[in-house]
Amino acid sequence: MSISELIKARTSASSYDPSRQLSEAEINELIELATQAPSAFNLQNWKFIAIRSAEAKASLLPLAFGQQKIVDAAVTFIICGTLEPHATLPAALKPTRDAGIIDEAIYNGWIGAAQNMYGENPTFQRDEAIRSGALAAMTLMLAAQDKGLVSCPMIGFNPAGVAEAFALQATDVPVMMVTVGYPGSSNWPKKPRKQISEVLTFA
Amino acid sequence: MSISELIKARTSASSYDPSRQLSEAEINELIELATQAPSAFNLQNWKFIAIRSAEAKASLLPLAFGQQKIVDAAVTFIICGTLEPHATLPAALKPTRDAGIIDEAIYNGWIGAAQNMYGENPTFQRDEAIRSGALAAMTLMLAAQDKGLVSCPMIGFNPAGVAEAFALQATDVPVMMVTVGYPGSSNWPKKPRKQISEVLTFA
Repeated sequence: MSISELIKARTSASSYDPSRQLSEAEINELIELATQAPSAFNLQNWKFIAIRSAEAKASLLPLAFGQQKIVDAAVTFIICGTLEPHATLPAALKPTRDAGIIDEAIYNGWIGAAQNMYGENPTFQRDEAIRSGALAAMTLMLAAQDKGLVSCPMIGFNPAGVAEAFALQATDVPVMMVTVGYPGSSNWPKKPRKQISEVLTFA
Repeated sequence: MSISELIKARTSASSYDPSRQLSEAEINELIELATQAPSAFNLQNWKFIAIRSAEAKASLLPLAFGQQKIVDAAVTFIICGTLEPHATLPAALKPTRDAGIIDEAIYNGWIGAAQNMYGENPTFQRDEAIRSGALAAMTLMLAAQDKGLVSCPMIGFNPAGVAEAFALQATDVPVMMVTVGYPGSSNWPKKPRKQISEVLTFA
């Protein structure tokens, strides 16, 4: 299947086969692919919690208003973006400088620019957390689709409850959750999209 | 190339071949693929402006702090998420109901849920605009990569200036810009990513 076909074939799946699990290696591979997504300045301001044990699923279920797919899917990823990304950029970007991809001047320039853009701007920090988390989430969902898995992005959960139950840090913003697993038998077909002319203009 | 290889091969490209353009049909196809991305309730709370004329590029250039890729890339997409998505959901979701994918009860239930979630919550509206726009942007970049094109997400621009220059509505949030075109000769290699163990935990 080509990537275009894969993109068109992907649907948000609520029905999973509860008998089929994913190994830790398979989950690692999905996150390795998800983190190929771009982020501003290569911030990589994201974090992933893979909920797969029966105990963790049971903790998460009421925080997601009882949605059964959390129990049935092999894994539910809590995808976080992180605030204060300017504080973590020097370490995150160091391997890019050490590999010689950017030089010392660009390294220092980006760190200064990030300080200026995010330092005093909590709204922009939150935007960036959502943006980076969503870019990684989309990459994750397409990577899963390519492996014969299905997925569903979820925003219906209690973020404060999730933060407490899974010991998130104050800088971790839960951007969305994504269930991943083998499909069950009762998934909806693809939902229709708006006409292109409704959403695209040329200039 | 498999989707996994494509995801790994994608880099953010600042160097474009200014002699190679994209047709309106090719741009339409990219947006058709981008809008296969999921959105909460199938809100489709997104909008795309394809900047490709010399005049529009000249207007955008200073608003993006003179970044030359805007001139050299075939097209720069201004990707917007839209606020007040609960107001546009009844129309956006109607084709899904009319196709029989969801029934009347689910249709009304989702509209009510969206009213409750977004109606009095401007932060959640903005989050949703960023989230939907970023999911579409990531899909767009991978679709472009599959066609032999390169892309670059950009957050370095003046959003108020862009809103004014391109007559955005008050509900349009510019989530990011994405340049797309044929590669030039001086693009960086892929920047290193954090170790998986730094960003992933199991529960």
